[in-house]
Parts: sequence; structure tokens; C-alpha cells
Amino acid sequence: MRRSANGPSGEDRLIARYFKPIARHPGALGLGDDAAVLRPPRGHELVLTTDVIVGGVHFFFDDPPSAVARKALRVNLSDLAAKGAKPAGFLLSLALPADITPEWLDGFARGLASDARGYSCPLLGGDTVATPGPVTISVAAFGTLPKGTMVRRSGASAGHRLVVTGAIGDAALGLRLRQDRGAAKRWKLDPGMRRYLAARYLLPIPRNVLAGALRRHASAAMDVSDGLAGDLAKLCRISGVGAEVEVARVPLSKAARAALGVESGLIETILTGGDDFEILAAVPAKSVGALNAAARAVGVPLAEIGRVVKEKGTRLLDAEGRVMHFAHVSFSHF
Amino acid sequence: MRRSANGPSGEDRLIARYFKPIARHPGALGLGDDAAVLRPPRGHELVLTTDVIVGGVHFFFDDPPSAVARKALRVNLSDLAAKGAKPAGFLLSLALPADITPEWLDGFARGLASDARGYSCPLLGGDTVATPGPVTISVAAFGTLPKGTMVRRSGASAGHRLVVTGAIGDAALGLRLRQDRGAAKRWKLDPGMRRYLAARYLLPIPRNVLAGALRRHASAAMDVSDGLAGDLAKLCRISGVGAEVEVARVPLSKAARAALGVESGLIETILTGGDDFEILAAVPAKSVGALNAAARAVGVPLAEIGRVVKEKGTRLLDAEGRVMHFAHVSFSHF
Repeated sequence: MRRSANGPSGEDRLIARYFKPIARHPGALGLGDDAAVLRPPRGHELVLTTDVIVGGVHFFFDDPPSAVARKALRVNLSDLAAKGAKPAGFLLSLALPADITPEWLDGFARGLASDARGYSCPLLGGDTVATPGPVTISVAAFGTLPKGTMVRRSGASAGHRLVVTGAIGDAALGLRLRQDRGAAKRWKLDPGMRRYLAARYLLPIPRNVLAGALRRHASAAMDVSDGLAGDLAKLCRISGVGAEVEVARVPLSKAARAALGVESGLIETILTGGDDFEILAAVPAKSVGALNAAARAVGVPLAEIGRVVKEKGTRLLDAEGRVMHFAHVSFSHF
Repeated sequence: MRRSANGPSGEDRLIARYFKPIARHPGALGLGDDAAVLRPPRGHELVLTTDVIVGGVHFFFDDPPSAVARKALRVNLSDLAAKGAKPAGFLLSLALPADITPEWLDGFARGLASDARGYSCPLLGGDTVATPGPVTISVAAFGTLPKGTMVRRSGASAGHRLVVTGAIGDAALGLRLRQDRGAAKRWKLDPGMRRYLAARYLLPIPRNVLAGALRRHASAAMDVSDGLAGDLAKLCRISGVGAEVEVARVPLSKAARAALGVESGLIETILTGGDDFEILAAVPAKSVGALNAAARAVGVPLAEIGRVVKEKGTRLLDAEGRVMHFAHVSFSHF
């Protein structure tokens, strides 16, 4: 069931070689202790989130290990961004199969180091174990913000505008391209569009640069991980409101528009596919301008797609104002 | 690669049914948000730790699911105890195979709820995903303590006494009993001893009641998870010291003494096998009495087993004062 080792164990050597160089935060104690220490700034509180990604489920086994590491961290950074929190650090739980190679670990550690630095979210501690299953990476990420200012999902009120960052559906289309080799040709995508969509699935772009502005201007927010339609439904349920979205205003990339032009049914994949890791927010009408200006200032595209209404339920309206219906509104593991 | 669902997703239903009832801490936001909020008391800081357990590696597939849940939480609680921190809450990452049953989840949630309550360590949030591999449970646990008071591994100095809680080696012997059906008979264990050792492997007893006393009296501490010999070596390496342990003073249960009486080679399993989840601490000689009194007051057995010395390296001494040598000093996954 378990293996043993002499002197500094294989596990200790693995940590020393790959992860200690990333753990420069003083609270990480060089990964040489049972636990890490984190002190939120005075008047601040902690925002805590965790997401796990599994080989063969959330990424492909032949994805570059540096991208796998970055995705594992970024899906958590995206939650912190949606809540308006500033990244403070993360813990990493890594379950590795026996056939993992030093090259894979090298790439993984390089990707992790790069994003830990890039997003100012240092590795604070972790655990590394063996598994007979696929690579399984759990990250618990921590952010800080002034007490009582976390942007919740529950603050949306009738009349508030709905906005999303970036473009919706690219990651779901990128996944389809990976699963269906003929799709790129069928959708008449040029090589640049193919690469773009594939990259959007491989590596989300969390919107942490917008966190401060969301905290100032949004009444509710969440990151779109399980599909815009289903995630909007969640935000509305917990806020006790409904929503109307004009689908024509949902921001799409050039590549997504090209694919949609060929196969109009892809609108369902785009709106329900998931893995966008964009921010969906409700914003009081008077604050939309300020949030827009803040988004422009940090280079994040922001689009108004609809509004919050009193009547429960989320309605996705087509160009003629008719309610659209889909077989599935969001991704679920179960 | 992924499945979809309508309305509140299967994942949402699973969370609502099994985990929402456990998440009563206000900062958990009913598990209805992207993240949780935690506010350490004024003048306090956070202690963060994570440990992952994997089916077929850290527990058996036929272990009761309530015990699996409790073990997943307790191995983390044990780290908080060793650091002197008071539990504040935890995040749960759960990767579940497709054939998991509602009965298993029921039992798992019941065990988790019981320990979350018993150790005052509420569920704050989590993530649940599907895996083609075994059940994989990652917990990130948080504790609080007054700023700057965390008991580190690095504070041991020559002359300090070494103490351990409870008894050493029981879990490793309990594991051997699970792996080797003939062992109980060979070791001449009565049914009570067998049950006792099996229970010690199945479910550790974290020493959180001793956390405050450790913070007041210990110069260094860690929990013994990978075997006393190897973990002591880690503590000494990071403290820049050595240690001498009188093996005859290492506290053993009646069951362990019985097995050892039949098979003297088991001393290696006992000292290096791991999964004890007892506390190993270095204590200035003048504070040993006070720590002993505090341990007695909370009903935790405490034994002095040796002392910290200047000369590097850890020496385990037999009854004649000779240094003992083992093939493997601690458990490692790699």
C-alpha cells in the first residue's frame, strides 16, 4: 500500500526540488513546517476558495504540464476576482500517478511559479501524495479585502444591469475542437481561430485586475465556470430575482462568431458549455458607467447583456425577443 | 468528457443534500457562493494546512465512509494542534468516481458533520468533481492564534526535552493487521487488542485539546504522520540540532507491547511506520512540568522520550545505550 525511503524522503526531495523555489512568501516557512501563516492586513478579512482539476476530466493528459498548473491556479484566482479579493496565496494538494516524469513535474512547477508571480499569489504550502488514478490537483486560494466588502452572488436587485467580461463560449468551443477533429473544418475556422479557441480552453484568463472595481461597483458577481446560462440562473436564485438576457448582446469572439455563422445550434454550446472563467456581474444602473471606465482602464472588455428583473427565472431572448430553450443549461459532474 | 444537467445541477443537488447542512458557519454563505469569508479575531493570524487522502493509498475502499471523512479532516486538525492553533474551519475538495453510492455519501457527510462539530471546525466551502480514479479527498484547514505564536518545527535547541503524546506505532501495526490476515494470530493478540490497533489505523485522534499548552510551553512541535524516527529527523534538521531518544521510553500501547514481545523486529514498524498523528514536541527542561500538568488536565498522555543535542543526526538508543539502525526511517510516497 505504501512505499518507504531513507534519509530525506523522496517526497521531501520532490518538494525541495520543484516547489520550495516557488514558496518565497515568509509565511510559507520554506515548506519546511506542518502549516503556513497568513496575516490579513488590519481591517481586512480572508476570502477562501477551492477548486480541484482532474486529468481526463478538466484537462487532457497531453496538455502541457505548465498549462495544467496554471489552469489549476487560475480557476481559483477567477473566484477571488469575482469576489473582489486581492490574491494572498494558495495551498496545493497534488496526487500524482507512479508514472509521472521529472519533465512533467519540471513543466508543472515552471507554470505554477510563473502564475504565482504574475498574479502575486504565492505558494504557501501543500501536500504531495501518490495515486493509482489520474493527476489530481486541488488548490485552495486565499484573498484579502476590507471587512464586509466581498461581492456576493446574492446582491442582485430588479433593475440592475447584467455585465460580462471578455467573450463567452470560446473555451467550450475549444474543447469541442479537441474532441471532434472535423469540427474546425466544418466551422470553416482559419488556423488563427483554431489556435485561439484551443488556447481559451487550455488556459483561462482570470480577471483579477478588475477585482477592485467590482468591489466598488457591482451588487453581485460570480465567475462563469459552468456556462453563462446556468451560472446566471444560480446568481438569480440566490438573489431571489430573475433575469432577461439579450443573446445578441452576449460578447462573442471573431472565432465564435465564425463557427456560429456556420452552425447556428452552437449557441447552446456557447451559452451553456462552461470553462469561460469570465466575470458575470449585476451592477446598479448608475454604476455601469464607472465600472465600464474602470474596465477600460485595465484593458478588460466589458459588455452589458441584459438586466435583473423581479419575475423569477432567467430568460434568454433571441433577436426577436423570443425566449430561447436549451436541453441543458449548465455543466455538471453528476 | 463531461456530463450536463438541467435546472439545479446534480452537483448542486449533491451539495445541497449532503454538505449544506454541515456548513452553518456564517462565512460559508450556505455554500451558495464562489468563496467563503473568514475574519480572524483581532490580533490573531491564520494558520493554513492541507492534506489529501486517496482511496487505496491512505484508506481502504471498504473502510466505513464516515471514518474516511473523519480521517480526511483529522489529519489536518492534527497539524493545527501541533502548531498550537485553534480550528477555524475548512474547505473540502472531493473527487468522486461514477459508482459512488448515496449510502457512501450519506455516511461520509455524517462523519464529516460529526467531527466538524466535535472539533469546532466548520465546513466553509468546497468543490465536488467526478474522477475516473479513486475517491480523493483534499482538505484545507484553517486555525487562528495570537500573532507570532505559531509553534514551528524550527525552535528546538540543545538541552530541550523531547516529548510525545499518546502511544506510538499503533496505526502502523493496525495497518499491518489489515494487510496480513495471519499477523494477529502470530502476534498472539486478543480480540480487544486487534480491534484497538485496527481502530487506531482507521481513525487518528488529533490532539487539539493540547494546542494552547503547546503554544505556551513547546519550543518546537510537529505531528507524527510519517513515523516517529523520520519526523524527528525532520524537526532536528530544520532546527539545526540532533536528538537522542531512549527507545525504551517511547510510549507503547498494551497491544503494541504484546506484538513486540512476540516479534521484536516490529520495533522498526512502530518507530517508522507512520499514521500516528500524535504530537512530537521539544520543550525547554524548565517547562516540562507545566506541559505535563496541562496534558494531564486535558487527559492526554505525554511521555518524555529523550533530548535535543548539539551534535546533528538523530540517535535511537536501545536499552543498553547502543544506536539502533533501520532500513527505512520514514514513510514516503515517492
